[in-house]
Amino acid sequence: MAEIVTAAMLVIGDEILSGRTKDKNIGHLADVMTAIGIDLKEVRIVPDEEDEIVAAVNAVRARYAYVFTTGGIGPTHDDITADSISRAFGVPCEYDAKAYAMMEASYASRGMEFTDARKRMARMPRGADHIDNPVSLAPGFRIGNVHVMAGVPSIFQAMLDNVVPTLKTGAKLLSATVHCPLGEGMIGGPLADIQKAHPDTIIGSYPKYLDGTFWTELVVRARTKEALDAARAEVEAMVLRLAPRS
Amino acid sequence: MAEIVTAAMLVIGDEILSGRTKDKNIGHLADVMTAIGIDLKEVRIVPDEEDEIVAAVNAVRARYAYVFTTGGIGPTHDDITADSISRAFGVPCEYDAKAYAMMEASYASRGMEFTDARKRMARMPRGADHIDNPVSLAPGFRIGNVHVMAGVPSIFQAMLDNVVPTLKTGAKLLSATVHCPLGEGMIGGPLADIQKAHPDTIIGSYPKYLDGTFWTELVVRARTKEALDAARAEVEAMVLRLAPRS
Repeated sequence: MAEIVTAAMLVIGDEILSGRTKDKNIGHLADVMTAIGIDLKEVRIVPDEEDEIVAAVNAVRARYAYVFTTGGIGPTHDDITADSISRAFGVPCEYDAKAYAMMEASYASRGMEFTDARKRMARMPRGADHIDNPVSLAPGFRIGNVHVMAGVPSIFQAMLDNVVPTLKTGAKLLSATVHCPLGEGMIGGPLADIQKAHPDTIIGSYPKYLDGTFWTELVVRARTKEALDAARAEVEAMVLRLAPRS
Repeated sequence: MAEIVTAAMLVIGDEILSGRTKDKNIGHLADVMTAIGIDLKEVRIVPDEEDEIVAAVNAVRARYAYVFTTGGIGPTHDDITADSISRAFGVPCEYDAKAYAMMEASYASRGMEFTDARKRMARMPRGADHIDNPVSLAPGFRIGNVHVMAGVPSIFQAMLDNVVPTLKTGAKLLSATVHCPLGEGMIGGPLADIQKAHPDTIIGSYPKYLDGTFWTELVVRARTKEALDAARAEVEAMVLRLAPRS
């Protein structure tokens, strides 16, 4: 059985914490991680403050196999992710020669000035690898197990597509959903018994509520098809027993 | 000048980390906090694991004036928030007499069984206060500076409406947005100079990208109208200078 591979995400940006921008990257990363068999175990949203970013990245990079960050790698003064990650790793943050040359050539070819602000986007921790940015050129970077990507969703998604093939993935968590027309209060007891009888599965119960009606989606997760099917059969039988189809 | 009041949010649930459910509560809480003058400084999303919940709630409740949690207070075995918060505070998790009686009466009046699963929803840390739930009865609770609410967005929002009037709010962060038709690379230098000249403001730059076009929204934030207006005037002048209206 393949080993379990874990990850954490760090969302960097005052604009998410103020509500001004609604995050769209957490759900996307979660979907991709689930699809490739990496367990996303924690997400933190932190402000544009160097001490906070350093403390958070050091906390999560020590605990999980991979860390993915979004936000704070643009050209303005409030983009401090590269500096913060460098400090977390104890290395200088400096112009990356390859990124600098590539961006200089690109701006020249478009007759645009390579401003000091734009040059900021060529800065990264010494020793970092590039994460290609097919949308707007300025690369993200990887250092150690930390992958630093843009906050703009279309650019984040393109960068993540370039990162995924480099990741060691684990045993995919298989899942099966059983629709239950009853609210959780009717099924909580028997469902807990099924969970106890199937410790190699994770059985989740997700209450739904709309216009006065409750129902529940029951999700069985397991690393093997055998474990999944055994628990799912019991959950389906429980639902049929408690809510017979008319 | 009013003091600054801080908060953190804890989103509890495997379903958010797996991507199965897309969180809708972070953005709502962020909007409400900004509107009432509380600074949301950190958000953590943690799995349905007691050790993780206890560690996270203890980390954030020590640092911030208020903590708001969502998720894990339903009737099923994977709803372990009440137990975890109790452990974090070192108090027993037990049936709350008032919640138990209220729920027992409500189920009886509807001719429904008060199952063991439903009884779970009357459990809370000893000494906790109720947070009323006008949608589906089972209350959330407050203990110390931690407010424990439901994960279902409509119920979370209704509970939060009941919490807001109890909060001590701080100096509202005023904000003004200046639209800038240029990408960040053109404005990063001058904008950093304006930020330096106005240390009593927070100037954010939010890059936008759609179909090959870049533009930027510049947001000035300050605790006083005077500080806001002074910095905003300089940002507007900068935009006009770099991108004169035709």
